Amino acid sequence: MNFASDNVTPVCPEIQAAIDAQCQGNAPAYGGDDVSGTLDRAFSGLFDCEVAVVPVSTGTAANCISLSTLVSPYGGIVCHHEAHINEDESTAVAHFTGGAKLLPIDGPSAKLEAENLSRYLESRVDRGVHSVTPECVAVTQSTELGGVYSPDEIGAIGAVCKQFDKKLFMDGARFGNAVAALNCHPADITWKAGVNALSFGGTKNGALAVEAIILFDPSKRAQAELARKRSGHLLSKHRYLAAQLAAYIANDLWLKNARTANTAAQALASLLVDQGGEMLLDSQANELFVTLPDNTAQKLRDAGMLFYSWPSLGANAYRFVTAWNSDTGAINDLKTQLQGS
Amino acid sequence: MNFASDNVTPVCPEIQAAIDAQCQGNAPAYGGDDVSGTLDRAFSGLFDCEVAVVPVSTGTAANCISLSTLVSPYGGIVCHHEAHINEDESTAVAHFTGGAKLLPIDGPSAKLEAENLSRYLESRVDRGVHSVTPECVAVTQSTELGGVYSPDEIGAIGAVCKQFDKKLFMDGARFGNAVAALNCHPADITWKAGVNALSFGGTKNGALAVEAIILFDPSKRAQAELARKRSGHLLSKHRYLAAQLAAYIANDLWLKNARTANTAAQALASLLVDQGGEMLLDSQANELFVTLPDNTAQKLRDAGMLFYSWPSLGANAYRFVTAWNSDTGAINDLKTQLQGS
Amino acid sequence: MNFASDNVTPVCPEIQAAIDAQCQGNAPAYGGDDVSGTLDRAFSGLFDCEVAVVPVSTGTAANCISLSTLVSPYGGIVCHHEAHINEDESTAVAHFTGGAKLLPIDGPSAKLEAENLSRYLESRVDRGVHSVTPECVAVTQSTELGGVYSPDEIGAIGAVCKQFDKKLFMDGARFGNAVAALNCHPADITWKAGVNALSFGGTKNGALAVEAIILFDPSKRAQAELARKRSGHLLSKHRYLAAQLAAYIANDLWLKNARTANTAAQALASLLVDQGGEMLLDSQANELFVTLPDNTAQKLRDAGMLFYSWPSLGANAYRFVTAWNSDTGAINDLKTQLQGS
Amino acid sequence: MNFASDNVTPVCPEIQAAIDAQCQGNAPAYGGDDVSGTLDRAFSGLFDCEVAVVPVSTGTAANCISLSTLVSPYGGIVCHHEAHINEDESTAVAHFTGGAKLLPIDGPSAKLEAENLSRYLESRVDRGVHSVTPECVAVTQSTELGGVYSPDEIGAIGAVCKQFDKKLFMDGARFGNAVAALNCHPADITWKAGVNALSFGGTKNGALAVEAIILFDPSKRAQAELARKRSGHLLSKHRYLAAQLAAYIANDLWLKNARTANTAAQALASLLVDQGGEMLLDSQANELFVTLPDNTAQKLRDAGMLFYSWPSLGANAYRFVTAWNSDTGAINDLKTQLQGS
Repeated sequence: MNFASDNVTPVCPEIQAAIDAQCQGNAPAYGGDDVSGTLDRAFSGLFDCEVAVVPVSTGTAANCISLSTLVSPYGGIVCHHEAHINEDESTAVAHFTGGAKLLPIDGPSAKLEAENLSRYLESRVDRGVHSVTPECVAVTQSTELGGVYSPDEIGAIGAVCKQFDKKLFMDGARFGNAVAALNCHPADITWKAGVNALSFGGTKNGALAVEAIILFDPSKRAQAELARKRSGHLLSKHRYLAAQLAAYIANDLWLKNARTANTAAQALASLLVDQGGEMLLDSQANELFVTLPDNTAQKLRDAGMLFYSWPSLGANAYRFVTAWNSDTGAINDLKTQLQGS
Repeated sequence: MNFASDNVTPVCPEIQAAIDAQCQGNAPAYGGDDVSGTLDRAFSGLFDCEVAVVPVSTGTAANCISLSTLVSPYGGIVCHHEAHINEDESTAVAHFTGGAKLLPIDGPSAKLEAENLSRYLESRVDRGVHSVTPECVAVTQSTELGGVYSPDEIGAIGAVCKQFDKKLFMDGARFGNAVAALNCHPADITWKAGVNALSFGGTKNGALAVEAIILFDPSKRAQAELARKRSGHLLSKHRYLAAQLAAYIANDLWLKNARTANTAAQALASLLVDQGGEMLLDSQANELFVTLPDNTAQKLRDAGMLFYSWPSLGANAYRFVTAWNSDTGAINDLKTQLQGS
Repeated sequence: MNFASDNVTPVCPEIQAAIDAQCQGNAPAYGGDDVSGTLDRAFSGLFDCEVAVVPVSTGTAANCISLSTLVSPYGGIVCHHEAHINEDESTAVAHFTGGAKLLPIDGPSAKLEAENLSRYLESRVDRGVHSVTPECVAVTQSTELGGVYSPDEIGAIGAVCKQFDKKLFMDGARFGNAVAALNCHPADITWKAGVNALSFGGTKNGALAVEAIILFDPSKRAQAELARKRSGHLLSKHRYLAAQLAAYIANDLWLKNARTANTAAQALASLLVDQGGEMLLDSQANELFVTLPDNTAQKLRDAGMLFYSWPSLGANAYRFVTAWNSDTGAINDLKTQLQGS
Repeated sequence: MNFASDNVTPVCPEIQAAIDAQCQGNAPAYGGDDVSGTLDRAFSGLFDCEVAVVPVSTGTAANCISLSTLVSPYGGIVCHHEAHINEDESTAVAHFTGGAKLLPIDGPSAKLEAENLSRYLESRVDRGVHSVTPECVAVTQSTELGGVYSPDEIGAIGAVCKQFDKKLFMDGARFGNAVAALNCHPADITWKAGVNALSFGGTKNGALAVEAIILFDPSKRAQAELARKRSGHLLSKHRYLAAQLAAYIANDLWLKNARTANTAAQALASLLVDQGGEMLLDSQANELFVTLPDNTAQKLRDAGMLFYSWPSLGANAYRFVTAWNSDTGAINDLKTQLQGS
């Protein structure tokens, strides 16, 4: 009953097996192995278009290397105030891009809104070299507050980016949870909507440590690979990254895991509402933000739940995160049990 | 018979088991787990002094984060021309340190020599802010050309560093092979010799992807951890790095693996000499550099060996690297077999 | 009648004379000349405490080199949204500091308020290496919107900085105008109030191109000088920077020039109010922000005035900047003349 | 008789007059003034091709901003060991380029040789992202050791650059002295020879503080201007930079000044040889490197000469630099006088 974060989960069995399968013989280093060689084709199939895949072991690396291919050291990146790149990645964006500046704006459930974005871009006075010109817009799917952009919403943002000649980046640390929630094709919320690069997250959703930089403009590969090496993110035993990714997308494991997490979140939401909780945000994926009546948090903790209070949303606010290993049955059982108490 | 690199090897069984053992339940992220909590004590025991341990997943990250705690953006790092940080890490050193400059010098088997280093430091004219002041000296143990510094040699370099008020960094990507070759205590070639920070390598010697930054001045920990986060090298499922490291030093696994590699290198050297090869460098650890008579390379490849030609050492020069999974028995058998051919 | 900016002014006669006086003979380069040698003592006298002076030729260089001595590449700088370092210096702060992040907050007339600052610092949740820790607070004196901090106001901000263990930096591009407006001792609004480093502006107030980095902790000099050289801001004919600065503070020229500008601003304010203008902000120095009735702006332009509309403050908002060469008499004459029209 | 450096000289009368002429009225800031507006056309005329001109106040800024338009943060810059960018600009190149690495090679009189350069580029093993790929070659004209590249020599280097697809940068801190020595058209040793960008030096040759970045690919202007602003090198009173440059190239002042310096160097060389000196290098411009018999240096200093010993060239080695204000008549008189002594 650990809802502290999806980062607390272990590696899922299928990915564990894939790692173990690489523990027998030798194989070329630095991506020269067979599994690494399959990734471009596999992901191009998954996204139904030609992509270049550059695997790394953390989300910060995936986000910042992606951004470094989209913005100059003099440019700005429009994002939500709550964006992980703005709030949780130290000064990494400036480090990887050579100085690009985050330009945070607001929106519900940590989502940007096309109209508001358009207004923001329109209102910025271009004062030439003095001011920072936005070169890129960054969204998170699903968002840091559990929000999910619909294909239409992303499409509208993509259209604004096109109109204003900005690149569009998607932090998909929980991309699987979004696709599972939307029940859409991955293409619908990425390149078809105007996304130029995506961090395709694996770690939170069952992998050991792997995120795939998906470049919808494959000509950016060389630059991304240089940035990866230069920042120390090229693993010598690259096949272990590749094996995680290959297993992650084989047989839709990534979606299976995400669905498990999302379903558990719904069950958990039901339990929390049952206990008097009020949902704070429109949470469609695997994160819930909720206010709980007095003593309820303690009651849930006594029942074995782990979760964080979330003071930025209010005194009685809490965050619950489900994951690929959450047990919906157990949640439902606990719900029943708590009803009786 | 893959002697192309020690990076081609798989994960060794003990470390695989340690990873698998982490695949059951949840655990706190970002180093809050139990295994991560044991590392400082374990490595302090190993080195017989208080150290701070900061695990990362690549050697470039370990080297450059270490260096970023030792030099300013305006400073220089004296190293050998052949040093991995100079030849094989793109522009990573400048990236992580904010601009520090590598100042390469020469020496046999990619080793710095105390006297030559002293002469170099003495001869540099300090032209104030115009010139780059060396702030740090970097050695590799064992070196990129298979050399090993004896405790006395490192001690002499450490004394020069002390005299000239320079920090001393050791790239220990193959530290285990050096300790195994020297049969010394790890302290003898590190802090007792004046080393301030060490990259303690795991990946080449049986791990999946882990190197430990060992800070002999534990007060540098906060800076190293900030640098790690900022560069995207803090893994969320940190316990998987920790578990690799813990298993790696438990029961002297790191030394056992290194000894296997070194022993195989000696057997392989014997085979190569037998075939008319001439050792180019004093190779004490797990890397051999050798010239082979015409056709011999082909003959060895036909016998199933993989290895690289090494043109920087001459037209008929080759490099052979053994590893934790090299089979000395098989090498000896092949030696016998080739003698008969 | 050019009120577009104080940057449009020429060099004032006294500084021109000082430059011309350096056009005779040879003198040591890079600050080894006699005039450069007098600056520390002269400014230590001016501020009534020991300071280190590092001259550069632009405000961006002065601000960013100063900041680079106060914050780490992982830290944050709290400033006003309207701060020049946030709005008008491209990505220079990140460039010079190695990545430090600006953390903008609000306040009237582009001024920070101690209480609000305290609340902001208190409210920031420290999430360790993930979040950016504010390490420095930056104020502008006088501000980008013509505001002036009283000694008490700066003192209160300095006290908050001390309480929260933050450094305090002052962008004094128009420092002279502030001191002239406050009629205080320069020490009262700098080191006595807790300021650690100051950009002491010369260019806008009569110099050709010089700003002095004033380090109230003189031990930071070496770092500032390294940062200056590394960023290409060490002039070989340094005496020309020094001569400007020496002349600028001799006989209180800087205050004389600033008083001329401030007096002209008051006369201009009177004219503008006379014409139906409404002062938008409490402008005590040499910048006025005003709304003008329809057609009035055109009328003033027809009368020979140059000035900018300032849409960020509203549709009919304008900015007027006076300078060391503004002619109060002429302004008063125009006022009378316009009254008759 | 100050031969310590051409940086010790004052501003020459013509440029002083141009600065003084700007000390009357107001003018738009940041390059919006009339004089700034003339530079592109003037320099395009001078070089007989369309160029973009970006003025800055130091050579380090000119060199490094130029280089930042020619190389990526992952690339290398081949230059001579003695190059100013390698030996005298701290870590500025890495700072401005985001990490590009200097790759120094040898050559007589601090000159690169086409054949040697070709061999170097050919011999570099491209190990993909691991190694640094040379992206640019940098030459200094005239060199740090007084050497001058003939049009043929530069042309040969340019041809090698073209063959290997490298950019070619020229540090022209003493470009005037080279053109004066060669008596060629500036185009002959720049764009016609394959130079992509040039630092056109003014400061050493009579200006107060100005160097012009000359971009032979004018489409690079925007990037150079962003880099200039970001590094704090955009002067608000830009007309003072422009006025220096305009005066500097009007009526071939730059060549007149350079010829004065070169002529004085020849007279000085004659005097030094007369006193038993031996020229160490083929010095065609305004720098002499010479060994002097015992006691001769003291004798010359007693006669009023200032100059530096140059230990890197030997125990009795010295450097003499003449400049636009050197007095050839006085040198000849001293020669005669010393002959009699």
